Amino acid sequence: MTTSATQTAASRNQTDKEQLTVMGAGLVGSLLSLYLARHGHRIQVFERRPDPRQAGAAAGRSINLALSDRGWRALEGIGIAEAVREVAIPMYGRVMHDAQGNLSYQPYGQPGQGIYSVSRGGLNRRLLDLAEAEPNIQLNFGQQCLEVDLREQQLHLRDSATGEEKHLGYQRLFGTDGAFSAVRSSMQRTDRFDYSQSYLEYGYKELTIASAADGTWQLEKHALHIWPRGRYMMIALPNLDGTFTCTLFFPFEGDESFAALRTPGQVQAFFERVFPDAVPLMPELIDDFFGNPTSSLVTVKCFPWVHEDDVVLLGDAAHAIVPFYGQGMNAGFEDCTVLDELLNAHAGDWGKVFQEFQRLRKPNADAVADLAVYNFVEMRDKVADPRFLLQKKIESKIAAQYPDQWLPLYSQVTFSHRPYAEAWANGQRQDAIMSRLMARIQSEEDYDRPEVQQLVQQEMAQVPA
Amino acid sequence: MTTSATQTAASRNQTDKEQLTVMGAGLVGSLLSLYLARHGHRIQVFERRPDPRQAGAAAGRSINLALSDRGWRALEGIGIAEAVREVAIPMYGRVMHDAQGNLSYQPYGQPGQGIYSVSRGGLNRRLLDLAEAEPNIQLNFGQQCLEVDLREQQLHLRDSATGEEKHLGYQRLFGTDGAFSAVRSSMQRTDRFDYSQSYLEYGYKELTIASAADGTWQLEKHALHIWPRGRYMMIALPNLDGTFTCTLFFPFEGDESFAALRTPGQVQAFFERVFPDAVPLMPELIDDFFGNPTSSLVTVKCFPWVHEDDVVLLGDAAHAIVPFYGQGMNAGFEDCTVLDELLNAHAGDWGKVFQEFQRLRKPNADAVADLAVYNFVEMRDKVADPRFLLQKKIESKIAAQYPDQWLPLYSQVTFSHRPYAEAWANGQRQDAIMSRLMARIQSEEDYDRPEVQQLVQQEMAQVPA
Repeated sequence: MTTSATQTAASRNQTDKEQLTVMGAGLVGSLLSLYLARHGHRIQVFERRPDPRQAGAAAGRSINLALSDRGWRALEGIGIAEAVREVAIPMYGRVMHDAQGNLSYQPYGQPGQGIYSVSRGGLNRRLLDLAEAEPNIQLNFGQQCLEVDLREQQLHLRDSATGEEKHLGYQRLFGTDGAFSAVRSSMQRTDRFDYSQSYLEYGYKELTIASAADGTWQLEKHALHIWPRGRYMMIALPNLDGTFTCTLFFPFEGDESFAALRTPGQVQAFFERVFPDAVPLMPELIDDFFGNPTSSLVTVKCFPWVHEDDVVLLGDAAHAIVPFYGQGMNAGFEDCTVLDELLNAHAGDWGKVFQEFQRLRKPNADAVADLAVYNFVEMRDKVADPRFLLQKKIESKIAAQYPDQWLPLYSQVTFSHRPYAEAWANGQRQDAIMSRLMARIQSEEDYDRPEVQQLVQQEMAQVPA
Repeated sequence: MTTSATQTAASRNQTDKEQLTVMGAGLVGSLLSLYLARHGHRIQVFERRPDPRQAGAAAGRSINLALSDRGWRALEGIGIAEAVREVAIPMYGRVMHDAQGNLSYQPYGQPGQGIYSVSRGGLNRRLLDLAEAEPNIQLNFGQQCLEVDLREQQLHLRDSATGEEKHLGYQRLFGTDGAFSAVRSSMQRTDRFDYSQSYLEYGYKELTIASAADGTWQLEKHALHIWPRGRYMMIALPNLDGTFTCTLFFPFEGDESFAALRTPGQVQAFFERVFPDAVPLMPELIDDFFGNPTSSLVTVKCFPWVHEDDVVLLGDAAHAIVPFYGQGMNAGFEDCTVLDELLNAHAGDWGKVFQEFQRLRKPNADAVADLAVYNFVEMRDKVADPRFLLQKKIESKIAAQYPDQWLPLYSQVTFSHRPYAEAWANGQRQDAIMSRLMARIQSEEDYDRPEVQQLVQQEMAQVPA
């Protein structure tokens, strides 16, 4: 899909080869560096944190992410998809756990389609190993960006170990330094820079479901588990070692909230009441709950993403979203794919590449931000509603009957490369159709009734293929 | 209206008297200092710019602002309303100038009600003189706030003249440092701080209408002049010296835009075509146009406005708005009135004062931000529409007929102290009523037709007194 830049005529031009600066060596920054190196440039990468591959670097908790098709495509572009797939666990659907411990199942897509639980740290380390092996990429850890002087094209860096500060020029700067980006923070102070950061009233906390004594999984391994409870929820994704990493999404304040659970006894009683089937699997619950941080959930939007033809933001630095669609990393990886395609098309014309990048990506970043909030409501509340599950079954029937006209929203987002903005618009049209149909449907069997089928045909006559 | 704190029992308590720090000595900061001093506190004021009263300080262009009832009330509270009124020019209505130079007039309120053109610099200097005369207030100019360490309660200041930097502790900090507040910028980096800055695609530029040879005004002195042109507009407010300060609100980009007017010839031709009656009064047009900056128009919203019980934001630092309702300064001054009332009610309990302040003011700040954008459309576009002017006349008739139930939105905002949020909600209900009535009305006379009167009665039966 992605052709190496050396194959294009424009990029053979020696003047194209530049010294590029990437700020941030997280998932997006390290992947981006690999793409840029393929185009023949020399890359300096600066990262605030120490090298996560060094002994002594915080091993940390197991944090996993759901990798889906957009992410896989970006990994394929640098040839490491197969290696990552070997350490990824496919999840083919959601398992919902109700308050009595009863389970129900909802597949994510067609048989064989799934999202993949991968270790965030493991994936990052693998990308860094690849970057380190590239002669054109130089990694610099423990380098905090204090400020970017956009006019003078200078970074102000501080060495975390020595405290030493230095100023360093750049020709072209790629800001992949995450939701609290220092590069973006400097751009925010320029005239006519639109910016918003907005927090949910929910926080999250990571907890653990232990493996069985024999190292196997105590819940269905190939699923994402959800304990939907209306105003809040817990989810769990499998790890390779037989554990699951759980995340509790929970209000900061109120009757049932982080603020209200202050003692081990309160936590234990609350979990036993609302997550009864999970508690026996969580021997470390109290230690995890009081030892792990409570983190906040922010959406960041900004524009422009570009400063002249010398700075561009990608990934969370440009568009941090809440995690409920599992698309944060995938959207950032898709940024790399899109930038790579633009570098192939307009090699050497950085102004054009950057302008096209933000023109193409900004509406999609806004859409996936909205999708992520939308899916929070679906996950914590609707998936516990029998009417909603019936609607999902009816929708599957429509999708099977009209495969060219109806791809469920979740599949558009997760299993296709359709632009997020288009998926979101389609999804809203589908929602409107479903709510008209569901007014006539009380059971799965109703779908085959002639008057319902007639209505379905009428609706589908309006839907383009 | 505002009682001196020395009259209240609580504030006589010596422990209440504190060293307070005000960051920013603009209009709101200097007024706030005067209020705080009345409560017996000692105030340190820091201001980035040099003292505007010093010789050598940029005399600058004449910039004027429209002072209305909320602003007057705040000035009355410190006893300088009468002195300011002597150098303010009342404007009793709008004079609209069409593209042929024809004029039409629309009063702002009842006879005698007006908004007042005052010199921004003059008012600021007067407030500073008063502050300087207070033994409890110490003014420090040329002190730029680089950062606030919220945890350590320390300011990081730089002396603009010497470049010297210092760290200074504070007990309680009032951020009145404007739309680009350094205090807010430090708060923005704390967890769960919601923030947005959003720019209009319009900029503005100040221009001048000269006085007549005898020093008198070449346009009606007691009016705000508008040249509404649909997508853009020019306005003019009178100055004491016979000149008017004009402001052109104009798109940054496009066919008719700042970007498109690049030569003196282009500017001259454009102005002669669209503002034909103004051009002969603007001998400095070309010099002004190319000499004065093109400024941008930002709306800033944030929350919380308070950090624990030791930092609070007021004025533009908390809620910068676009200037189209003439309420930016008035809203900031009303912040001082509200804070003063809370200090009377809860003297000594700063946590309570600050929490109540943001609880009361945030919805009103959001409302006036929306009102300001709404009024831009009205001023640049609707006031040129005969149907809109007819609607305003009909609305005046309703207001006269139902004085207890109908105060026009403009009057609620400008000539009352009704909370902005309430005014805005009322205004939207009034808009809905007017659009239903106007569907039956083609002329002023139609208002008296029995079927229209019946409709008016029906509508008004729903409107609370």
